[in-house]
Amino acid sequence: MSNEIYQKIRVVLVNPSHPGNIGAVARAMKTMALAQLVIVAPQRDPFDSEARARAAGALDVLLRAQVVEQFEQAISDCGLVVGASARLRTIPWPTFDPHQCAQQVVATARHDAVALVFGREDTGLTNDELARCQRLVHIPANPDYSSLNLASAVQVITYEIRMAELAAGDQSVSLPPEQPLATAAELQGLYQHLEKTLQQIGFYDPANPRQLMRRLRRLFNRAQLDKMEMNILRGILAAVDEKHK
Amino acid sequence: MSNEIYQKIRVVLVNPSHPGNIGAVARAMKTMALAQLVIVAPQRDPFDSEARARAAGALDVLLRAQVVEQFEQAISDCGLVVGASARLRTIPWPTFDPHQCAQQVVATARHDAVALVFGREDTGLTNDELARCQRLVHIPANPDYSSLNLASAVQVITYEIRMAELAAGDQSVSLPPEQPLATAAELQGLYQHLEKTLQQIGFYDPANPRQLMRRLRRLFNRAQLDKMEMNILRGILAAVDEKHK
Repeated sequence: MSNEIYQKIRVVLVNPSHPGNIGAVARAMKTMALAQLVIVAPQRDPFDSEARARAAGALDVLLRAQVVEQFEQAISDCGLVVGASARLRTIPWPTFDPHQCAQQVVATARHDAVALVFGREDTGLTNDELARCQRLVHIPANPDYSSLNLASAVQVITYEIRMAELAAGDQSVSLPPEQPLATAAELQGLYQHLEKTLQQIGFYDPANPRQLMRRLRRLFNRAQLDKMEMNILRGILAAVDEKHK
Repeated sequence: MSNEIYQKIRVVLVNPSHPGNIGAVARAMKTMALAQLVIVAPQRDPFDSEARARAAGALDVLLRAQVVEQFEQAISDCGLVVGASARLRTIPWPTFDPHQCAQQVVATARHDAVALVFGREDTGLTNDELARCQRLVHIPANPDYSSLNLASAVQVITYEIRMAELAAGDQSVSLPPEQPLATAAELQGLYQHLEKTLQQIGFYDPANPRQLMRRLRRLFNRAQLDKMEMNILRGILAAVDEKHK
């Protein structure tokens, strides 16, 4: 049971620059019983000698890591995508501390795949990448120096997940959802459809976006749509489109 | 007040072998607002180039570290000495997880100095050293691979201390909402408008409701709409209505 939950949770590193950090992330993950590592467009060879040295006894996790070119490939099948963010955004996004985050990650991982997304060492995640995340997790670091090492950030987040999983034990408080959750790819499809339809009815002008699409994304991300709700919303958009043919 | 608590808490590294780890410990500490580092009998120069590189923006913490010869010197003035232990002992010692440990550390640091003691990278603390600790803190790692990097262990323990201090200080990490929430009356207005518009575009047939409105209510209720989101949704419905006049 425990193992199944850990297998549903992957760590996604976006565009990491230092192979040593990637190895250290593998080590941090394995100490917390996680093994699914996905590396998006690494800037250098993620399996070099420094990465292997820093992985220590977690070399297996490092060597089984999946390397993909696009961020989309790393998250498309996930029911929950959580982004680690050190920055405050102009539009506040639903943000949890690692303890709160872990409760939701463990509850979701009982039935759906979860991605924990970590950005570049220097600049973090882009706004477009953050917009693909349904939740943000923020480690409440020292405001005067909040720069955790990448592997240290992974260690803290995954530590809280293990604590939550141990505390939850066999008691499953949350009911299984009526329907599987919509995947990240399905959500992306919804947002594209919504944007197109809103342009068509004259409500949305890309030349004057006023953060409209970002606000709508935030709303639906927060709701964690299931597949039936997704189908209803797509159906409504299709009905609006049909009338405007 | 906060600063005084953090100043009462020191990290003690006993006989560390890798300068890089010492620098990484300084960085982990500073991200959690700690600055008192004591190094007992380091095996190599704790201020070498690798230590400085790994310290990154916490070079000040590294360079102000106190180096002592005897463990005793590092802890003698402390009211509470907590030892980090990966091992189970033959004689059970009062052992906390990092969350429990942090509560006691923060409570004690209001009035007394506290030492957090971390052992050698390979062999940890000796039995004599452990015997000088009043409490042990144990990170509940993967039993199949419990070997956290030294700086990662410091990061987890000090993260919990900062979380405990923030909780005690009644400071919330979550942002205040950007907008007041929509009221129940506003929500009701939204649902009525939505129902009318969906009928108009032929998506909803009250004679064959299929729980559609109930599902949409549940979705938007779950999202806890704020006033701006409410206005956006009403605006979209009005734009659809306009096209069907």
